[in-house]
Amino acid sequence: MPKYTPPVRDVRFVLDRVIGLDRYTNLPVFAPATPDVVSAVLEEGGKFAAEVLFPINHSGDQQGCTRHDDGSVTTPDGFKEAYAQFVESGWGTLGAPEKFGGQAMPHVVATAFQEFMISANMAFAMYPGLTHGAITALLVKGSPEQQEKYVPKMVSGEWGGTMNLTEPQCGTDLGLIKTKAEPQADGSYSITGTKIFISSGEHDLTNNIIHLVLAKTPGAPDSTKGISLFVVPKFLVGDDGSLGERNAVQCGSIEHKMGIHANSTCVMNYDGAKGWLVGEEMKGMAAMFIMMNAARLGVGLQGLGIAEVAYQNAVQYAHDRRQGRALTGPQEPNEKADTLFVHPDVRRMLMEGKAQIEGMRALCLWGALQVDLEDAAPTDEEKQLASDLVALLTPVIKGYGTDIGYRTATNAQQVYGGHGYIAEWGMEQYVRDARISMIYEGTNGVQAMDLVGRKLPANGGRAIQAFFKLVTEEVAAAKGNEALADFAGRLEKALGELQAATMWFLANGLKNPNHVGAGAYSYMELTGVVAIGLMWLRMAKAAHEALAGDGAEDRKFLEAKLVTARFYAERFLPEAGALRRKIEGGADAVMALEPEMFDAA
Amino acid sequence: MPKYTPPVRDVRFVLDRVIGLDRYTNLPVFAPATPDVVSAVLEEGGKFAAEVLFPINHSGDQQGCTRHDDGSVTTPDGFKEAYAQFVESGWGTLGAPEKFGGQAMPHVVATAFQEFMISANMAFAMYPGLTHGAITALLVKGSPEQQEKYVPKMVSGEWGGTMNLTEPQCGTDLGLIKTKAEPQADGSYSITGTKIFISSGEHDLTNNIIHLVLAKTPGAPDSTKGISLFVVPKFLVGDDGSLGERNAVQCGSIEHKMGIHANSTCVMNYDGAKGWLVGEEMKGMAAMFIMMNAARLGVGLQGLGIAEVAYQNAVQYAHDRRQGRALTGPQEPNEKADTLFVHPDVRRMLMEGKAQIEGMRALCLWGALQVDLEDAAPTDEEKQLASDLVALLTPVIKGYGTDIGYRTATNAQQVYGGHGYIAEWGMEQYVRDARISMIYEGTNGVQAMDLVGRKLPANGGRAIQAFFKLVTEEVAAAKGNEALADFAGRLEKALGELQAATMWFLANGLKNPNHVGAGAYSYMELTGVVAIGLMWLRMAKAAHEALAGDGAEDRKFLEAKLVTARFYAERFLPEAGALRRKIEGGADAVMALEPEMFDAA
Repeated sequence: MPKYTPPVRDVRFVLDRVIGLDRYTNLPVFAPATPDVVSAVLEEGGKFAAEVLFPINHSGDQQGCTRHDDGSVTTPDGFKEAYAQFVESGWGTLGAPEKFGGQAMPHVVATAFQEFMISANMAFAMYPGLTHGAITALLVKGSPEQQEKYVPKMVSGEWGGTMNLTEPQCGTDLGLIKTKAEPQADGSYSITGTKIFISSGEHDLTNNIIHLVLAKTPGAPDSTKGISLFVVPKFLVGDDGSLGERNAVQCGSIEHKMGIHANSTCVMNYDGAKGWLVGEEMKGMAAMFIMMNAARLGVGLQGLGIAEVAYQNAVQYAHDRRQGRALTGPQEPNEKADTLFVHPDVRRMLMEGKAQIEGMRALCLWGALQVDLEDAAPTDEEKQLASDLVALLTPVIKGYGTDIGYRTATNAQQVYGGHGYIAEWGMEQYVRDARISMIYEGTNGVQAMDLVGRKLPANGGRAIQAFFKLVTEEVAAAKGNEALADFAGRLEKALGELQAATMWFLANGLKNPNHVGAGAYSYMELTGVVAIGLMWLRMAKAAHEALAGDGAEDRKFLEAKLVTARFYAERFLPEAGALRRKIEGGADAVMALEPEMFDAA
Repeated sequence: MPKYTPPVRDVRFVLDRVIGLDRYTNLPVFAPATPDVVSAVLEEGGKFAAEVLFPINHSGDQQGCTRHDDGSVTTPDGFKEAYAQFVESGWGTLGAPEKFGGQAMPHVVATAFQEFMISANMAFAMYPGLTHGAITALLVKGSPEQQEKYVPKMVSGEWGGTMNLTEPQCGTDLGLIKTKAEPQADGSYSITGTKIFISSGEHDLTNNIIHLVLAKTPGAPDSTKGISLFVVPKFLVGDDGSLGERNAVQCGSIEHKMGIHANSTCVMNYDGAKGWLVGEEMKGMAAMFIMMNAARLGVGLQGLGIAEVAYQNAVQYAHDRRQGRALTGPQEPNEKADTLFVHPDVRRMLMEGKAQIEGMRALCLWGALQVDLEDAAPTDEEKQLASDLVALLTPVIKGYGTDIGYRTATNAQQVYGGHGYIAEWGMEQYVRDARISMIYEGTNGVQAMDLVGRKLPANGGRAIQAFFKLVTEEVAAAKGNEALADFAGRLEKALGELQAATMWFLANGLKNPNHVGAGAYSYMELTGVVAIGLMWLRMAKAAHEALAGDGAEDRKFLEAKLVTARFYAERFLPEAGALRRKIEGGADAVMALEPEMFDAA
């Protein structure tokens, strides 16, 4: 059975030495995040994840959720108790505003805790995760009355929340939704339609579930411009906050999925359910994107979280399992065989995991910091930079990050050999769970199109130029440092490939937008390679400084950072050139075949 | 629900125009493969796969195998009937020698049929697949009496066969096995021990199962040099071929696996079972490698087979599903949305599948031809070349081919968006099924080590030099042809990277063998990129010639070959440079960390 230890030390390294959280203490948003509080969140949050959520991860996968004939849904054994503990300890309140009962912790701190929850039990983490998305939309678009009515109990975790977008005929293209919202005399709407793939759509963890639902009002245009957002509680809520009548929304069935079995993914049937407009009519897409963008960063974090726990177990297995001898001769001649650790290709898989995971962790935390700084930075210029970086990096963290998560989980399973394929060992669950994160909240292909189609051209390319400037400056600064010069040179080369690819889009995209579309995925990967490269430059610099300064007590950990940075430079940065060349292939061969020519049968 | 159409047209293209099967008709081994017979095998074999095996693929996955309290195992509904048809139609006899009731079809033809079976139902195909491996070992190492006793009924399919290698404490390192073989007065051995992960170990398809089992005789050295191979029938077989006593071998349990649920993967308990030595005592590893090498080519074919069926369905889904609009403007303005086909990133995924699948098919069939030519080529020189190519390409076809299979299945699932994650749509099964092929018969890491550690240095590098010569000559010939010159130039560049990587191993491997081990995986991938590149050069050449000649009736199919070759050149050959650079990173960063430094928690 797998184990899990929250990577508190590495999170601390990023927060303290790479991001330098103490540099922001003068900003009001960061005030609640005193060193003591941050320590408590990481230590206690890690403990909660490892001791309460992790023990029910594998059993939850094996048991799954159960729908009963009355449409109610039971979560796996232990989930209700764990969720009660989650609520009691106030973990759901971490990042929420104080006025609704939250602890107002900055996003960067809440993100660190999120990672632990996902590693420990991704299917569980999705229940509060969806609630969090729904809260975000209500805070931005809901009326004060709606906020007051719903948000406090969602923050506390007493009530859950969901996002209802997808229908059988459409997911990516929400202009095609058919769910109808008929205005009623009392100002409410009657919602009718079928939504599918609704995560946490129905369950037994909370006594109410607040559904946020996309639907079309009568006469609305038949496109995304005609979509409105509604709040549809499972139980109607009285003005005094009491629960009233059961609303006409039902779980029709639970989907049979490849993974995340312990999260109830529901078909939701709305049969004249009572709902209320959130924000303006026909402005539902904008509201949905608020939820979506926050959710996308959270999904990127799922890639990291699953990769981390899978990696940890692969490391342990490589310690425990003896098989064969080192190429350089027996390392433990008294044993019948050496451990897997001596084999360079096993090391290669573990080092790939380590380099990708720690790089992604830094990127996720840095990205979360930018979310905080969007609102909190002292100057408008800094706010804009943060906002540009969030916009640019969100599809990269979601798309590239979840690809990394799947690959790392697959490699961790591979270290186990045949045992990796057997359910009891727990590794195959990580691969199945990781797989969904590449699909939902916009497939990774949609992320790539978001990056090249929206984020690149926005404001005349301001965001990518800002990113180039950032990398260029840090490379230039590092080149003067002998210990970092080699890495900086290699990163500069990778950045050059990204810049060349960007220029290629500029030169060819107007002629034919398919040239950009055909290279979008490689461009997303290339941006990811460079962004994580930037994180490794920063981590190497921080480790180097710490080794020279006060960090000598943790010498091995810091030395490992330097080695892993070198590994990243040797094994991942070279991909940049290949990706640039793929992009420059353009759309001709990609789009040339008539549909029937794909058929070779 | 998925569909499957056997890719007969593409197989024919490879056999007729790329390999040119008719060039070999003068060799006795190819005599049974008359054009009529080959056509019948492809047409009828494809029909059998699509109409008998495919309909029970998804249901077989969902139902799985059942072990009963008496140790017997029931396969999923329909498997027994399908297997009876398999036996009745004589599909098991295809590649077997005539003297044992086989049709003596060359390996290259049998391989084409194998692919269809795997695509249609991989878990089913494994039952006869394992029997085939056991037959191969008995034919090479078994005594005439053993061959006569067991092989005919295994060829007909009346009896099944298995390979029993792995034990709980060892898989890759078979020197660690504990199963004991005690010699008995009657010349037999008493076999005692536990074997795990035994595919097709127990089932209800055949009335006997012939287990081939690795065990150690008393006093044998505690290494692979002490291993012997035994034949252990489930039911003892009388000299007249009648079934006798039940042997003391039992299925202890069925493993709960990520996929291939319809194949019974068993823990097999040998409790003083009666067995007979196959070949010489303590020469079991050599015998096992005979089975293994044949099996590895078969596993590579699993990568191809799963990729093909997953790809076909992704193409169909891209036809059917409407979502969004083309970047260049609506393609079907009267519909509410265009099909997925218009989106360049969807095309990219489909084209990647097409390029990898058709390239792998050519490589698998060409590899199978070399297996035929090892024995059948007219001169010793040609035999040696074929034998060298088989040795070199087997780990590439197994390792790189199954990586391709998994990636292609994952991409095909991705085309489906959320529906790809739902069991009913059938795509997630392909990902789960494909995953095992990267693990068993030697993990892909073991394949990489086999390539660089055994196959590269053998006979002073004769095999890789022969491969370089082959590619160089074909590139040189193609450069004179305007239509092929660009492709040839790009392939030459990729070959240059492979040659440079090979030189780097030569220059650095002696100093430190870990330098070779650390680059082994990238080297396997690089060899795969070039080998499939060679196949695309040949296919482009053949398509070009056919378009100019008699192939005009199939113009679209041939034009698609040219476009796909270009796509391969633009999108896969660029990886060669990155892989070479990764290899040149060497072992330093890979091996530098002390074991505890992998822990960042």
